[in-house]
Amino acid sequence: MMSIRVAIAGARGKMGAEAVHTVMKHDKMELVAVLDYKEVGRTLADLDMFPASYTVPLFTEMHDLVEATSPDVLVDLTNPHAVYNHTKEALNLNVRPVIGTTGFTDAQLEELSTIAKEKELGCIIAPNFAIGAILMMKFAKEAAKYLPDVEIIEMHHDQKLDAPSGTAVKTAQLIQEVRTQKTQGHPEEKETIEGARGGDFEGMRIHSVRLPGLVAHQQVLFGGDGQLLTIRHDSLNRNSFMSGIAFCIEEVMKMDQLVYGLENII
Amino acid sequence: MMSIRVAIAGARGKMGAEAVHTVMKHDKMELVAVLDYKEVGRTLADLDMFPASYTVPLFTEMHDLVEATSPDVLVDLTNPHAVYNHTKEALNLNVRPVIGTTGFTDAQLEELSTIAKEKELGCIIAPNFAIGAILMMKFAKEAAKYLPDVEIIEMHHDQKLDAPSGTAVKTAQLIQEVRTQKTQGHPEEKETIEGARGGDFEGMRIHSVRLPGLVAHQQVLFGGDGQLLTIRHDSLNRNSFMSGIAFCIEEVMKMDQLVYGLENII
Amino acid sequence: MMSIRVAIAGARGKMGAEAVHTVMKHDKMELVAVLDYKEVGRTLADLDMFPASYTVPLFTEMHDLVEATSPDVLVDLTNPHAVYNHTKEALNLNVRPVIGTTGFTDAQLEELSTIAKEKELGCIIAPNFAIGAILMMKFAKEAAKYLPDVEIIEMHHDQKLDAPSGTAVKTAQLIQEVRTQKTQGHPEEKETIEGARGGDFEGMRIHSVRLPGLVAHQQVLFGGDGQLLTIRHDSLNRNSFMSGIAFCIEEVMKMDQLVYGLENII
Amino acid sequence: MMSIRVAIAGARGKMGAEAVHTVMKHDKMELVAVLDYKEVGRTLADLDMFPASYTVPLFTEMHDLVEATSPDVLVDLTNPHAVYNHTKEALNLNVRPVIGTTGFTDAQLEELSTIAKEKELGCIIAPNFAIGAILMMKFAKEAAKYLPDVEIIEMHHDQKLDAPSGTAVKTAQLIQEVRTQKTQGHPEEKETIEGARGGDFEGMRIHSVRLPGLVAHQQVLFGGDGQLLTIRHDSLNRNSFMSGIAFCIEEVMKMDQLVYGLENII
Repeated sequence: MMSIRVAIAGARGKMGAEAVHTVMKHDKMELVAVLDYKEVGRTLADLDMFPASYTVPLFTEMHDLVEATSPDVLVDLTNPHAVYNHTKEALNLNVRPVIGTTGFTDAQLEELSTIAKEKELGCIIAPNFAIGAILMMKFAKEAAKYLPDVEIIEMHHDQKLDAPSGTAVKTAQLIQEVRTQKTQGHPEEKETIEGARGGDFEGMRIHSVRLPGLVAHQQVLFGGDGQLLTIRHDSLNRNSFMSGIAFCIEEVMKMDQLVYGLENII
Repeated sequence: MMSIRVAIAGARGKMGAEAVHTVMKHDKMELVAVLDYKEVGRTLADLDMFPASYTVPLFTEMHDLVEATSPDVLVDLTNPHAVYNHTKEALNLNVRPVIGTTGFTDAQLEELSTIAKEKELGCIIAPNFAIGAILMMKFAKEAAKYLPDVEIIEMHHDQKLDAPSGTAVKTAQLIQEVRTQKTQGHPEEKETIEGARGGDFEGMRIHSVRLPGLVAHQQVLFGGDGQLLTIRHDSLNRNSFMSGIAFCIEEVMKMDQLVYGLENII
Repeated sequence: MMSIRVAIAGARGKMGAEAVHTVMKHDKMELVAVLDYKEVGRTLADLDMFPASYTVPLFTEMHDLVEATSPDVLVDLTNPHAVYNHTKEALNLNVRPVIGTTGFTDAQLEELSTIAKEKELGCIIAPNFAIGAILMMKFAKEAAKYLPDVEIIEMHHDQKLDAPSGTAVKTAQLIQEVRTQKTQGHPEEKETIEGARGGDFEGMRIHSVRLPGLVAHQQVLFGGDGQLLTIRHDSLNRNSFMSGIAFCIEEVMKMDQLVYGLENII
Repeated sequence: MMSIRVAIAGARGKMGAEAVHTVMKHDKMELVAVLDYKEVGRTLADLDMFPASYTVPLFTEMHDLVEATSPDVLVDLTNPHAVYNHTKEALNLNVRPVIGTTGFTDAQLEELSTIAKEKELGCIIAPNFAIGAILMMKFAKEAAKYLPDVEIIEMHHDQKLDAPSGTAVKTAQLIQEVRTQKTQGHPEEKETIEGARGGDFEGMRIHSVRLPGLVAHQQVLFGGDGQLLTIRHDSLNRNSFMSGIAFCIEEVMKMDQLVYGLENII
């Protein structure tokens, strides 16, 4: 089997640098080029942050990059400003985009979607690449059909400002779409310390734990007669996004249209 | 909405008695009759084990039972000997069976399936009614497609003879059907205490914990770069089967054929 | 080694019956007599609830019981009304009491303590016999000295009326006695759903989960730089009290005074 | 209250650099000097790895360092070769050592202990600074006295070579010192997959999970009638050692002799 030829834009950012390592180490992929907005060297090896063996050529123009290295996929981890143009250019040059930033307007998404469809090219735009978190949400939504008594406990480091977390609220929304409306707990339940029963989201309770040492964790608990089903995701560092990116690079090769959100291809 | 008319066979057994309470308390169901193999009273209220308010009539013949009470569904929690005849009789009398015992031959299953199809009647035969356990296995199989590094920890009371549990082995088999073949752990990994790394099932490790106080618990752990996805089921008592039975009574009303195994309708 | 001779008061209650089984099965103990407030039979074997092999004599008078069977220890699981007299009588007859009910007045406790000291007899009065729960509280108190960032998650069945549980509040009180006063979480933390951050107990947060299927569970989480210490207790059924009773029967033999609360001998 | 004056040896190592940040940010401590084996700059600010505000003077001789900056405590995170001399010199110069390397001979420890005693100076030598891990082991040892049925599950990243981990074995040894000798599990228990029941350490079972994404985690499970007590430690990054070092800097000021192992002052 031939390996997938990958180009990366944004390689000097935190996520981008991780993506470089991920593709370099992957045995079904080859990193053929890197796109940067300015002249920073001839190859990645010229940058202090990468080892001398990373002799992957750097380009400042997408057109030159594609002509010289013929990538199959462009992974873009740059900022919202650059990413729309990159995506459009890539599609027009017959390169499949895998995009990790949000910030597209609806009109832009529609336009990109139309180009992808005409060209019959896969294109993945994903605000969240953590496959485990997406599976957790998907399973939670499915379990709630059968076990409608649910509580969510999310746990994060104590520097987080908002409670509950965005993931917890999104999980609750997904569950709400399918579960039978119900009020949980004893009807005459009372709190002797206010807030003990957590935040109320349409009858479901959400609890937010904040402690130093924690990173980003969530468990969804489903109770039934005599049983408990728990779905838990622990995100321990930034690498959790990398297996998602590798997955998308492989998936985008099999697709012939634009998909927004990893949950739609998992 | 009209409530579902339910008859139960095997009401004096442990599971059967629980099923009686489940249906009696369910607001969308009505317990209209009970089938016993011998004369034990006129109604359930004549039996010491049920309260005086349970004036549900007892029958010893399926034919009489159906004629007198017109049930929609027959829940059968008797033994393998009786259950085949009950299922066949019920279908022939246009009653939908929900069956909780195993022990059918392939020929019997085929025959029952044919009758169900001809009559366009739902029929559910389920070796395991614990919805949470079935969801755990289903989710584990799906997660393994994306996160192929898996270990299973099952935990039971210390009077259990076999290790690993049947559920753990079944989970591993389901995972094996879909995951990329791989050897987990460091290639030069070594055990300084033999057995520490658990039992090897096609490269996956299974760990069996046995302690007094435990009932029946299992967690399936999926590791990826920087993240962990855990799916856990705790079965704390026999009641865990009851929500599965209630679910099947509702589902069988919408079906027009025989299904074997709850995983095929969840 | 000679076995400990045990008498039980309240053998027909739920806890009492479990205590009977516990002592009967214990290889260092012998159940020599049972005290009941009325004539119910000659031995336990006359009661439907015990097997025919339980030929332990029943008495209605403590004095007769002690004269006939010379017990070392009296386990009393009766009600608050009877228990004070039983304890006093037992001490005066040189029998060591192990008491599982609360409801003594301070004056009564003082009087019993004085008798125990004069007689140099052990006497244990314990509102909670679940050794695991007591260890959890003790360890939590100790850990808080070193890791003062704490949150408590307690989880109970959804028929429980009060939140948080008594054990959670008691744990928080014990922690508060030793930990450096501090406000946890980010100073500008805000709840987008009210109550998400749980109940506030002197700066610690307590979260109460209520779901069907749960019994009685609590975890105490301590966060520090890059680490998390969790102490968890799961009480799955009434038996959790029995190992505590067996422990007390052995301990009371080595003591020469009254102790209130298991935490003071563990 | 006056702040504690701290000097650090080994500031350019991974642990040392973290220690520098820890002391700089601590409001009861002041970083007054750093000891290096060679001339690398005038202050920490001259090193790329530290911010320009870290104007802490560097020394290559302990004697000069002490004379110029009068530290109360020397934190040494260098290698086994240097550390013995550093410790001895510090004590002779009336500075209290906090040492994070092993590799002392018994004779060296005895000599250092004698000097500390004569000088009435605190001195802490600790192979493991993770307070949470030490508390876990301490609590496990105590719990085993009351709940002698124990299993250990340790979980690490899949690049770890040995199973079980050193911490798991040390925990089992500590438990073994106090628990009643017993064989756990059903006497006729059998493994249908070899190794499923884990490694056997004097009747206790140890299970080693290895998965990508994991860091270093351990739980000790104690089972009793109807209950489970779990003590769990998650070490998520190197910072877990830093709160231990801060704790030792404060403790060593109150001590007047040498202590080996954090478990002896916690």
